[in-house]
Amino acid sequence: MSLKKLFAPRSIAVVGASDRPGSFGCCSAENSLRSASARVYLVNPRKKELHGQSTYETLSRLPETVDCAMICTPKQTVLPLLREAAELGTKAAVVFASGFSEEHSADGIALEREMQDLAGKYGMSILGPNCAGLINNVDKVNLWGMNCSLDMNTRPAGIGVLAQSGFIASNIMARPGLHISYVVSSGNGNIVPLEDCLEYMTEDPAVRVIALYLEGVRDAAKFTKALGAAARARKPVIVLKAGKSAVGARAASSHTGNLAGNNEAYRAVFRKYGVVEVDCLEELLCMAQMFAVLGDHLPRSTGLGGLNLSGGANTICADLCHLYRLELPGLSERDKARMRQFIPAFATPDNPLDATTALFGDIEKTIGLLQVYEQIPEIGGVTVGCSIDITEGKVSVAICEALLEARRRGLKKPYYVVPSLEGTPSPRYQEKLEREGIVLMSSAKTAYRCLALLRDYMNYRPERHDLTPSALPADPAAKHTAVLTEYEAKRKLGAWGVPVGDERVFRSAEELSGAAEELSFPLAMKISSPDILHKTDCGGVRLGVSNLEEARLAFTQILEHCRENCPGALLDGVLVGPMAEKGLELILGVKRDSQFGPLLLVGLGGVFVEVFHDVALAPCPICREEAEDLLQSLRGSVLLRGYRGEPIRDSGAAAELMVRVSRYAVEHPELQELDLNPVFVYPEGRGVRVVDALMLLRQPEEAGTNQKEGSA
Amino acid sequence: MSLKKLFAPRSIAVVGASDRPGSFGCCSAENSLRSASARVYLVNPRKKELHGQSTYETLSRLPETVDCAMICTPKQTVLPLLREAAELGTKAAVVFASGFSEEHSADGIALEREMQDLAGKYGMSILGPNCAGLINNVDKVNLWGMNCSLDMNTRPAGIGVLAQSGFIASNIMARPGLHISYVVSSGNGNIVPLEDCLEYMTEDPAVRVIALYLEGVRDAAKFTKALGAAARARKPVIVLKAGKSAVGARAASSHTGNLAGNNEAYRAVFRKYGVVEVDCLEELLCMAQMFAVLGDHLPRSTGLGGLNLSGGANTICADLCHLYRLELPGLSERDKARMRQFIPAFATPDNPLDATTALFGDIEKTIGLLQVYEQIPEIGGVTVGCSIDITEGKVSVAICEALLEARRRGLKKPYYVVPSLEGTPSPRYQEKLEREGIVLMSSAKTAYRCLALLRDYMNYRPERHDLTPSALPADPAAKHTAVLTEYEAKRKLGAWGVPVGDERVFRSAEELSGAAEELSFPLAMKISSPDILHKTDCGGVRLGVSNLEEARLAFTQILEHCRENCPGALLDGVLVGPMAEKGLELILGVKRDSQFGPLLLVGLGGVFVEVFHDVALAPCPICREEAEDLLQSLRGSVLLRGYRGEPIRDSGAAAELMVRVSRYAVEHPELQELDLNPVFVYPEGRGVRVVDALMLLRQPEEAGTNQKEGSA
Repeated sequence: MSLKKLFAPRSIAVVGASDRPGSFGCCSAENSLRSASARVYLVNPRKKELHGQSTYETLSRLPETVDCAMICTPKQTVLPLLREAAELGTKAAVVFASGFSEEHSADGIALEREMQDLAGKYGMSILGPNCAGLINNVDKVNLWGMNCSLDMNTRPAGIGVLAQSGFIASNIMARPGLHISYVVSSGNGNIVPLEDCLEYMTEDPAVRVIALYLEGVRDAAKFTKALGAAARARKPVIVLKAGKSAVGARAASSHTGNLAGNNEAYRAVFRKYGVVEVDCLEELLCMAQMFAVLGDHLPRSTGLGGLNLSGGANTICADLCHLYRLELPGLSERDKARMRQFIPAFATPDNPLDATTALFGDIEKTIGLLQVYEQIPEIGGVTVGCSIDITEGKVSVAICEALLEARRRGLKKPYYVVPSLEGTPSPRYQEKLEREGIVLMSSAKTAYRCLALLRDYMNYRPERHDLTPSALPADPAAKHTAVLTEYEAKRKLGAWGVPVGDERVFRSAEELSGAAEELSFPLAMKISSPDILHKTDCGGVRLGVSNLEEARLAFTQILEHCRENCPGALLDGVLVGPMAEKGLELILGVKRDSQFGPLLLVGLGGVFVEVFHDVALAPCPICREEAEDLLQSLRGSVLLRGYRGEPIRDSGAAAELMVRVSRYAVEHPELQELDLNPVFVYPEGRGVRVVDALMLLRQPEEAGTNQKEGSA
Repeated sequence: MSLKKLFAPRSIAVVGASDRPGSFGCCSAENSLRSASARVYLVNPRKKELHGQSTYETLSRLPETVDCAMICTPKQTVLPLLREAAELGTKAAVVFASGFSEEHSADGIALEREMQDLAGKYGMSILGPNCAGLINNVDKVNLWGMNCSLDMNTRPAGIGVLAQSGFIASNIMARPGLHISYVVSSGNGNIVPLEDCLEYMTEDPAVRVIALYLEGVRDAAKFTKALGAAARARKPVIVLKAGKSAVGARAASSHTGNLAGNNEAYRAVFRKYGVVEVDCLEELLCMAQMFAVLGDHLPRSTGLGGLNLSGGANTICADLCHLYRLELPGLSERDKARMRQFIPAFATPDNPLDATTALFGDIEKTIGLLQVYEQIPEIGGVTVGCSIDITEGKVSVAICEALLEARRRGLKKPYYVVPSLEGTPSPRYQEKLEREGIVLMSSAKTAYRCLALLRDYMNYRPERHDLTPSALPADPAAKHTAVLTEYEAKRKLGAWGVPVGDERVFRSAEELSGAAEELSFPLAMKISSPDILHKTDCGGVRLGVSNLEEARLAFTQILEHCRENCPGALLDGVLVGPMAEKGLELILGVKRDSQFGPLLLVGLGGVFVEVFHDVALAPCPICREEAEDLLQSLRGSVLLRGYRGEPIRDSGAAAELMVRVSRYAVEHPELQELDLNPVFVYPEGRGVRVVDALMLLRQPEEAGTNQKEGSA
């Protein structure tokens, strides 16, 4: 279903047009009438004329079948009107009324279901209900249903704004000078889903960057597919994911009924797709505007040059760069000598540079200094400490004029104007500077954080990620969880090429004696039972068993202890294998997220995971580079590189294992959870070994034998 | 030397008064003439009249001896003018000219030294050189030497601003509506030091909160004394410490020549004194203004209530609270029932609350909801998601009017108005709201971070800290470092009551044999040498030695290995003692900071310190509560509380040891560095034991024997 008629209708009917200020009918009429490229008809059976236009009594009286109907009437009247439009052949609609599924009421849900059916039957793209509308500042069509101050005649394009909150969308729109291509308030998002709008924006060349206010997705596969397309096309997606906290998730779900989902899963998805995640609206807009203004002229390197007018501002600049680990490349003696031409004798040439008040108003010196930075390849862009606010102070104006003059003289690197304090930029200078690719940043701390996010975006390489959408959540029909014994789990993994070692389950001490010559001492002996998850806790483990006699005794004792400590547990026998040589302990796991499918988790054993939560997470499947990056991202990764005289570990084999396990998870949709703990990582060249394995499968009731009521 | 004549002069001479716009002479004349409570004389030998006033040729021609002289002339003329003023009996001066010690030039340094001498001789309080001046908005005296837009007739008082950068001070002053009592630009700070200004503000009741832009301190003892006074008086000190990073420190030192110092030491000092540390100017001003506006009405509990007008804003509010671990107390069923009276049926009563657009403009409902929060004791204040900017939007105005009306009706809890985006607040509403103790916050993320800093400030208890100023930096005359052997170090510590175990140095294997019946096997045997710091590395350690024969052999081998691996090292013999029972490993250390004296460091052994840098630091001496808090602050403290079946550890004994060691460091100014690694912490009730000890002393050359060239 193409969204063209919704995003760029050539003709619009405002159904329920009104002149009551602030009402959907009045705002819709006013806004749509400002559309440059669409014919607008106002429909109201009780008024002959509205907003200086003759009205129509019903949709059927219009002189043409419109592309899009804006339904401004209350909840109960929406469906008949939509049906009328659909039957006339209208293929798109915007519904503002609330009171549907977001209120969790039976009639609201039923009405929205009917709306969905209607949309399906007639192939109609319905935005909403409970939305604030859509603005297309590319084709100049305004389908917004609330007060809207955006002037499409003057507003530059660039950002595709997509918000699961009309109020947030309105807030965004009110940002002076924001470069907007589209604003979409997706409302309940059950008919035209957010995911489809995202896909549309991903494909539209008029969108340079996508700004997403996201409470939750419905269709994870479609969502990740769109993110993949954006990643490959190098179109930045900035997301403010709301509902990160438990309280926030509750707030989000009581808002539009969205499922906020598992925040860690979203984080992992965002990292995989190079999505820039921000913490607040100010960061969202600063990032989006930065990309819109830079356009195709992203910096070529991640280092920054700093230019400030006082020692204080310069020191704060250096400290904020340090806080966000932004690189300030040092200057060569030659660069310093060149800088000295433009600064007083008592000033110190350095990066960042305190150019001192001597620079106040001196355009030539400013350009001279910018020229030094222009020629240093490690410096991708220059931050200029300056606030060009509405008062247009003399010093600020001179700095801004110098930046503009630098552009005229062919200097090309991005400049970021960084004010110390919050405020309102001068609209005149904002327009002048942004037209030249000069970015007006938010106040300093936010500014440097956003520059760090830009650095991260630049460092992201889609080719280092397996962007095959997997997103296979658990089959909802498969409600039962089967726990496999360690032996079964290892057999499955072993067949998949995972190094699990040579082990066997013995049913009796006699069987063990009979196989005496196969045993390679010392042995590890562990109870084999699908009902015992923590084998050590119930006396089910004996390690370092050194001869047959000990082994027979251990066999008997293990069964005794487990019978005593876990009465009723099904005991298959004892799993016996040679003791694994001790290696560095890794923990590898898979959890199937209810939305994004299997996620691979990796961490180092012991306090690393348990005290410091030093783990990395990625949606499956992952590729080799991704596995390496995940290992690297662990703070404990120093241990892999050889710590305190310990050998360098076989990270390659660990990465290979991660890739293999991630593929296993993708190919086995019944896998609900996998826990390889520990995995021993041996010195370089000597591989890895899975020492213990726990596997949980989800399956329909009839499939397995060892089943429990699912609760995950 | 009282600073009264400098901070609140009754008569002022502007020496070098001028009418050249932007010059010190012109700005000083204009600014000082606006002083309500001081007589101002303009001195200029070449002009008869300036700024509508008759001028005086020299200071000696003035009709009175002024309290304070503003010296607006260039560097070379400053000293004669200061001398003239001093000889006339003037007791305070402000010097704007730069080119002194901050430029590191020989003549600049010499001139500043002369100025210091003059100040000392005549008891003159000289602010500067290289400063921007001082504003006293309490007594309405303006000694600022640069453009100044601050209107002392209308500006409320509250904050004492103290800045080691004139530019930053100007930036701060330009903040609309900031409640300012004083602004002091301390310049080079070698005559009237920053520390004295801080002390003045600490004692002045007209200062409710101190905002400090700090590059470095000169007199750590005076600095911490002032901080201690502020902490005890519960006067908040907010500090933006610049020069936190290496690059930043370099930038700071080339600025005013201040020593940025060790950032970790500053952090530790700030924590001890409850100083609120911020990252940028916006946070500094948001925090300072918050305290100024709240005045004596700080919240009574740290929990927050949240009131928002949309689901989106509400979710972001919840997430930001989560990010900064701000507590949003849950609502009782009764509270929820009360809330339901004021929100639509489809809305969900919760904290934070999405009151929905139904609240738009409804003052009664808004007050109703505030009333619910007013009665919940766990909620100390309420954040209201709203931006009251210069456009004074209808919804915002209604919310603000509701807040004002709530005050009229006796509601007392702090309200924090939190805008989503950066902008400029409406001056009219800012004034109205702040007068009622309602705080206009910076944009959301900064706002919630500042509320978290407020929470931390509220949780700080001066009585849980030993605020005895110690600040005993190493004696600069003591340039030589003596390394003590483990035995010597332990003997000193043992005499101080530190549990070090029973050990003895044997000079020969024969001596060892002779003491056979005193030995309690198994033994730990370690080389005793002041030249060997890492005993294991050169084969100088043997553990678990189980009988005399083994011990004799070990003795010989240890000496052999050390002779081979550390040729030239002085070998005292072998330190022999019973093996210590294994306990949880703690690392305890002391480092003498060059400014703040001895700092105690504590961390858990192994990866905790080495990979995660999980350490806590505090200036000595510390009290018992402080020791407990330091241990608690470690992420690894879970191990002390009994981790994975391990016993609960004797944290009390560990805390006691920390206190004892901190006192040792204070009482022994020669102690340069102490490293107790490991300290074994035994199960509860069984104490601690120092297993190894390294001690470095600083002393004059003649004092010791085992000495090396100091390099610390």
